[in-house]
Amino acid sequence: MTNTEKLQSQFFQLRSNKTFELFVILVIIFSALVIGVKTYDLPPVVIKVIHLLDWAITLFFLVEISIRFIGEPEKRKFFNKGWNIFDSVIVLVSLIPIEDSEMALVGRLIRIFRVLRMVSVIPELRMLLNSLLKALPQLGYVMLMLFIIFYIYAAVGSTFFAQLNPVLWGDISISMLTLFRVMTFEDWTDVMYETMEVYPFSWMFFLSFIFLTAFAFLNMVIGIVVSVMEKENLQQRKEAGEPTLKELQAQLADVQQMLRNKR
Amino acid sequence: MTNTEKLQSQFFQLRSNKTFELFVILVIIFSALVIGVKTYDLPPVVIKVIHLLDWAITLFFLVEISIRFIGEPEKRKFFNKGWNIFDSVIVLVSLIPIEDSEMALVGRLIRIFRVLRMVSVIPELRMLLNSLLKALPQLGYVMLMLFIIFYIYAAVGSTFFAQLNPVLWGDISISMLTLFRVMTFEDWTDVMYETMEVYPFSWMFFLSFIFLTAFAFLNMVIGIVVSVMEKENLQQRKEAGEPTLKELQAQLADVQQMLRNKR
Amino acid sequence: MTNTEKLQSQFFQLRSNKTFELFVILVIIFSALVIGVKTYDLPPVVIKVIHLLDWAITLFFLVEISIRFIGEPEKRKFFNKGWNIFDSVIVLVSLIPIEDSEMALVGRLIRIFRVLRMVSVIPELRMLLNSLLKALPQLGYVMLMLFIIFYIYAAVGSTFFAQLNPVLWGDISISMLTLFRVMTFEDWTDVMYETMEVYPFSWMFFLSFIFLTAFAFLNMVIGIVVSVMEKENLQQRKEAGEPTLKELQAQLADVQQMLRNKR
Amino acid sequence: MTNTEKLQSQFFQLRSNKTFELFVILVIIFSALVIGVKTYDLPPVVIKVIHLLDWAITLFFLVEISIRFIGEPEKRKFFNKGWNIFDSVIVLVSLIPIEDSEMALVGRLIRIFRVLRMVSVIPELRMLLNSLLKALPQLGYVMLMLFIIFYIYAAVGSTFFAQLNPVLWGDISISMLTLFRVMTFEDWTDVMYETMEVYPFSWMFFLSFIFLTAFAFLNMVIGIVVSVMEKENLQQRKEAGEPTLKELQAQLADVQQMLRNKR
Repeated sequence: MTNTEKLQSQFFQLRSNKTFELFVILVIIFSALVIGVKTYDLPPVVIKVIHLLDWAITLFFLVEISIRFIGEPEKRKFFNKGWNIFDSVIVLVSLIPIEDSEMALVGRLIRIFRVLRMVSVIPELRMLLNSLLKALPQLGYVMLMLFIIFYIYAAVGSTFFAQLNPVLWGDISISMLTLFRVMTFEDWTDVMYETMEVYPFSWMFFLSFIFLTAFAFLNMVIGIVVSVMEKENLQQRKEAGEPTLKELQAQLADVQQMLRNKR
Repeated sequence: MTNTEKLQSQFFQLRSNKTFELFVILVIIFSALVIGVKTYDLPPVVIKVIHLLDWAITLFFLVEISIRFIGEPEKRKFFNKGWNIFDSVIVLVSLIPIEDSEMALVGRLIRIFRVLRMVSVIPELRMLLNSLLKALPQLGYVMLMLFIIFYIYAAVGSTFFAQLNPVLWGDISISMLTLFRVMTFEDWTDVMYETMEVYPFSWMFFLSFIFLTAFAFLNMVIGIVVSVMEKENLQQRKEAGEPTLKELQAQLADVQQMLRNKR
Repeated sequence: MTNTEKLQSQFFQLRSNKTFELFVILVIIFSALVIGVKTYDLPPVVIKVIHLLDWAITLFFLVEISIRFIGEPEKRKFFNKGWNIFDSVIVLVSLIPIEDSEMALVGRLIRIFRVLRMVSVIPELRMLLNSLLKALPQLGYVMLMLFIIFYIYAAVGSTFFAQLNPVLWGDISISMLTLFRVMTFEDWTDVMYETMEVYPFSWMFFLSFIFLTAFAFLNMVIGIVVSVMEKENLQQRKEAGEPTLKELQAQLADVQQMLRNKR
Repeated sequence: MTNTEKLQSQFFQLRSNKTFELFVILVIIFSALVIGVKTYDLPPVVIKVIHLLDWAITLFFLVEISIRFIGEPEKRKFFNKGWNIFDSVIVLVSLIPIEDSEMALVGRLIRIFRVLRMVSVIPELRMLLNSLLKALPQLGYVMLMLFIIFYIYAAVGSTFFAQLNPVLWGDISISMLTLFRVMTFEDWTDVMYETMEVYPFSWMFFLSFIFLTAFAFLNMVIGIVVSVMEKENLQQRKEAGEPTLKELQAQLADVQQMLRNKR
């Protein structure tokens, strides 16, 4: 075993160490707190301390990711995992010293996204996010349908109401934002009453839109509930080692066959 | 095979061609974008270009629908499908040249509805819409019940509150609109506080209305969820080739019979 | 068969007649329309016509309920059905001539409630209402729990905030109305920001209230969904003539017994 | 049997007595009404009467809890139940005479919490609360995920918008409150329009936040529904004495074995 191999196996052990993992989580929570504290008005001394802490955290994350990388038996596999790439990018970008006021804002944003490392470190959260992402594609066509409804209503809305209130109906993108507002019922009557003064029948526009989107949304939710439940049911049956009715039927047919042959 | 028959079979093939379908979808998306662009303030040159594009799209749709019609083996079946009629009407109305300012608005509306062709062209969206429409009839009686609740409360509301605020409670149709607003919780307390100044117990009117409609609505949603799930379950069992418990029982009874006979 | 018996059997037939039922429904719809029309500003002539129509409808309902009553073979059973009592009271009260302005309002209310006769006449609506009413008792304890939460928060609210804004927190009943408003998210931040100026930690009061009520409400909804689905499942199995797994198990045990006896 | 043992068994019987339980519930309801009455403006005489009633109720609760304690066969078990501790603390704290105006408020709060004794006395409410509390832990990780989303968006929000409106985005905790407001759709467009004047693309911040939280929340609800239904299903099968499919399969395998052996 060469020195590098020894180092690698030591780092691999460290990586899987429960205490090490807990420590990493604590540092991430601490970095989240530092980010939170920064949003308050602080005396200059505290700001300096926080600046130092910031660099210390960045350094710790650099060391931690290095340990993970060196500890990985196959280097190629390391970058196959999306979370590893995310972690590396966040750490590397934090290392770039930025003094420029415009770029400083980006630097602060990057530091905020470090809180997301919580998800990459805690396996349960990673699983939860994966299950959320898996539910997305099956929403595809309903989302497309909703988008078509929004687009048509926004086009109609900006055709008729653009003159009345350009702030709400100026062009198709603003109209879509206004329609999203209507969908969330946020002061939607104010929007409607305004248009009803000129077009007394515009309530049909709003009510039909609300019914259509509510109905499509409801359908979407029910669709997810149904599919999630079925998957859950199937998985539980497998875990419990339950046979399917089909398998029972085959067994019964076997019994029938045996009885018939004996006659 | 006559010339017309050759043409028909060629067009039939074209119609079922994947590339052709994709091209049609792209043209529809492009026409949607043109509709969107029109809602912005544009220099006169761009408006002219868009006007030309509009005609080009109309022409393309005319050609496309002709191909579909000629490619159809049985001409009668063509107009049996609701979507074909919808497509034809949209295209034909777009062909009418309208310069009149009043009618121009209608012309713009027709062009907007062309985006709906997306639903008629993509099979998945057509299926989704069909499944949505199928869910509607079973809502029939709950919708009627909701309407009766709305009607009675609107009649009571306009009887008592019409003098207080004719804008909200002037007549029965305005009252129903106000009640729909209350149902969406949109500034419903403003409506209530106003009436409570004269009728201190009018909160009972609003609270009972909210409870009744919320309860009826909830019942409606649950009804759909339950029926959708059952259909889904039945279909999945059929697809998986699973026997029913009744079939298993019959098989078992057969085994019992055979054993008894042998005694 | 005496004359009264003849009359009774004739009326019984009339009562069950489809055309008669349809005609009654049409009159109820017409009476609903008359009620709706009355909420508009009308010329005196129309008001007179409507007054006459009103009496004609009342008369028709009187005749109709008499037919139902005479057509009933057992008079006692007639008043066992809640809807018959409801119908009779509505018709009888409509008959009292009221000129007094105070009582006139009550008279109008009674006429509005005639629309509810729609529910008593259409069997599907009657069934729907019954199923809604059946779902209510199982909500009992959750409603009581919600009421206790409301009561405690209202008592705390009016103890602390009554001085700040007596309109919203003056006494315990007003506070409960304000809390219901908070539960529907209707301008709840305005209520909160006001109290936060004096008690900066009062956001905990509002957020904990929102979480508690939302959680209890969610639990209530899920409870209904689950119980409705189970009933539906059981009923469907019975209708399909499906055996239970227990019955299948008994059959199998019988087979095992027979095989053992033969050894 | 000694005197104390006699007393204990007598008190144990009293404790389990239905009439006694009902009387306790009535006193709790009465104490709740007294708390409610106190929030109204009252003449000094009534206030004095209420003060006396308050002490009478406290005394009754002291006697009642003593009966419960003495009636308990094993004194240690008494304090194992959370509700007994809760009841004792509430009663003991009510006994402390407080005249100080600051402390008087705390005293009133304690008296309000006496209404919670309703939950400790009625078994159905106690069960309901337990089932609610049992559902909480499984929400753990989704709540953590929601909190991380809130924290990141609040950090970004207070970084960019703190200068625009310090009342809404001043520091990270105020920003989280503002984001909760956005999540409940309460005047969220006012918050958005304000930021859009300076950052025209800030609608992406709000819309992405709404989609993320709505999606996570939906997932949470579905998760609870699914798990509640499965538990309910399992329990019902057990109660009905239904075998599992696995048990049926074992029985069938036994039949097959017997038939094979006979050949």
